[in-house]
Amino acid sequence: MFGKYVENVRERASLVHCITNYVTVNDVANMILACGASPIMADDPQEVREITALSDGLTINLGTLHQQSITSMKLSLAQAKEKNIPRVLDPVGAGASTLRTRTALTLLGQGDFTVIRGNSSELCAMIGGKSNTRGVDADIRDELRNDHGESFLFDLQEFARKYKAVVVVTGAVDIVTDGKTTYRVSNGRKEMSRVTGTGCQLSGLIGAFVAANPKRVLEATVAAVGVMGVAGEIAWNRMTKADGNGTYRNRIIDAVFHMDGETLERRMNVETF
Amino acid sequence: MFGKYVENVRERASLVHCITNYVTVNDVANMILACGASPIMADDPQEVREITALSDGLTINLGTLHQQSITSMKLSLAQAKEKNIPRVLDPVGAGASTLRTRTALTLLGQGDFTVIRGNSSELCAMIGGKSNTRGVDADIRDELRNDHGESFLFDLQEFARKYKAVVVVTGAVDIVTDGKTTYRVSNGRKEMSRVTGTGCQLSGLIGAFVAANPKRVLEATVAAVGVMGVAGEIAWNRMTKADGNGTYRNRIIDAVFHMDGETLERRMNVETF
Amino acid sequence: MFGKYVENVRERASLVHCITNYVTVNDVANMILACGASPIMADDPQEVREITALSDGLTINLGTLHQQSITSMKLSLAQAKEKNIPRVLDPVGAGASTLRTRTALTLLGQGDFTVIRGNSSELCAMIGGKSNTRGVDADIRDELRNDHGESFLFDLQEFARKYKAVVVVTGAVDIVTDGKTTYRVSNGRKEMSRVTGTGCQLSGLIGAFVAANPKRVLEATVAAVGVMGVAGEIAWNRMTKADGNGTYRNRIIDAVFHMDGETLERRMNVETF
Repeated sequence: MFGKYVENVRERASLVHCITNYVTVNDVANMILACGASPIMADDPQEVREITALSDGLTINLGTLHQQSITSMKLSLAQAKEKNIPRVLDPVGAGASTLRTRTALTLLGQGDFTVIRGNSSELCAMIGGKSNTRGVDADIRDELRNDHGESFLFDLQEFARKYKAVVVVTGAVDIVTDGKTTYRVSNGRKEMSRVTGTGCQLSGLIGAFVAANPKRVLEATVAAVGVMGVAGEIAWNRMTKADGNGTYRNRIIDAVFHMDGETLERRMNVETF
Repeated sequence: MFGKYVENVRERASLVHCITNYVTVNDVANMILACGASPIMADDPQEVREITALSDGLTINLGTLHQQSITSMKLSLAQAKEKNIPRVLDPVGAGASTLRTRTALTLLGQGDFTVIRGNSSELCAMIGGKSNTRGVDADIRDELRNDHGESFLFDLQEFARKYKAVVVVTGAVDIVTDGKTTYRVSNGRKEMSRVTGTGCQLSGLIGAFVAANPKRVLEATVAAVGVMGVAGEIAWNRMTKADGNGTYRNRIIDAVFHMDGETLERRMNVETF
Repeated sequence: MFGKYVENVRERASLVHCITNYVTVNDVANMILACGASPIMADDPQEVREITALSDGLTINLGTLHQQSITSMKLSLAQAKEKNIPRVLDPVGAGASTLRTRTALTLLGQGDFTVIRGNSSELCAMIGGKSNTRGVDADIRDELRNDHGESFLFDLQEFARKYKAVVVVTGAVDIVTDGKTTYRVSNGRKEMSRVTGTGCQLSGLIGAFVAANPKRVLEATVAAVGVMGVAGEIAWNRMTKADGNGTYRNRIIDAVFHMDGETLERRMNVETF
């Protein structure tokens, strides 16, 4: 069922405009190339509208945001909305600074995002719940396994309905919801959080998947989440005893490079609830 | 014949100032180190003149350009020209936005570039032909294999003569011309386009090669193009079935690290026409 | 003796705020994750005070500095000082441009840095000695092996006392001094200088080590220097004949990922003098 979205990405070879942080940008570019799409990075206000207009998707990532890139995010978002180009928001570090939280909310108010992907702390900060962000890595386990977790899930679904977006929360398990249907994807490895930017890479992948499958946004997003998780598992199986996060990083990208629909369907662990 | 330029790069250990994009900058730095030169990255207007002045070469790359870096490019270019330091232009994304095309042309007008390297779309945009840039990856195959291709080659040679620069167009085959002599280098693998920044890396390499061989610019550029292509082949031969673009990226740099003049001459596939 | 500082870093899982260059930032992030800490990169003046305040350590790196990031460095440094958060300075390229030297000295004057780490040229530039920086790679060998070298060591110790900082000079051997006790660490491989950013990565590591061991700053810094050197050796031993600096880069991070106190103590080559 989800495999065809992978194949569509390879066939369409979509162009994805990324306004993203300089920490993980290279891996985001290689990840987008790995899945069969093409990345273009540009963040100067004078050119972003044109760049967005020639792209099939837009991914906005708030890591290392600055005054000028925030202006560019707004310009690109407006352009994407006008041209009906799918747009993804990764609110990196929302909750960690007022600037990031405020920018996330401003873009959200402006935006009609197609997909919003973050960890639980970032989503909490956007929804207005308590945030305990420490840096840009957070873990959904605690939230989802206890009572507070179930309330957080309810909040997520409401948030998705309110903003008419697909919302993705990644952590020990990944949740994807449009407010009506909710998927839980249980793939990946905890060691992925030891590689910087696996979240950013997934947001880039989602940009490619919704660009290539604009009419099946929920399913395409679930497929992208599955690809990342399955790739993390395949990559881990190739690790030798002395390999660490430096090598793991490359192996994850390699695994996406070889991912096909059949492999995804066979290995993906997904359920609705 | 071309091997000695590789050896000169290792002997001279030139310093190459790069004003380049933040997507691929790390690989550009490692590529310059791999060939035996040293990179220095700086793009603040307050320091770029000094940095250029202490360097042996300058590579300007338009990817992720912004207002301040454009100012710095102009300052560094003027400094390099005054001090007779070889200077390379990589017009990344020319044709994809007005800002990039205009910046490329402004620098060209100011510049007396030693070498200009791009893909066919970028060069088309600079020459004034039709541009069909989709992102920063383009393919020269179509242009060179049909009648339009031959006309494009003629345009390139004229462009090289007009601006007294060596012009490099990379794609399925690579063309290097100073307007009088034209080389075709047929090395490399199509999978190199699945690694972000192989073009940027080549522009960095060319910066190192012309810095170390300032009196034989055409031949040194051909050698750099050959090194990149041969490295792409050697690197591919080391790939296992599960390796993808994440690993390929590192193997290409590794292959340049071990490149010597003898290997280049044995494997390089070059002809004039 | 130094092993426990490694274990403390893994236990404390400190958050390290880095204002650093875009060339090597990804490797710095992965290196900080490899040692068991977490990185957060932010350099917009509007948010850096908040980001620093929620962090356990701050590392400021002058590579690719620009006007706005310099403002942010000053704001973060003041915040870290006020909150007693350990702070590390890596004066990349001090001596190569007036802007870098002046910024390094301005921060130094403002700062009460916990640790200052550079190569011999950068430290010379800060101390006021002759600088012969060519790019950002320099070698301490010459300075330390002859009479000038001994005088340089004396200068370093005086500099450390004057600014009440631990001073680290890395090169063929690494020197760590607080002006009273001086350590020489003889690990690592000369090939590490062929990987861009091993110095930046070490400065990131030091940030993590002093964040987790704030009361034993000298020893924690020596431990971090030892970890980097030993990792460079372990990584080199895993290299095959065809591997180069592209692969070496990942293997060094991998080796830190697996580093433990016992391995450090067994392999570290350290003496006081």
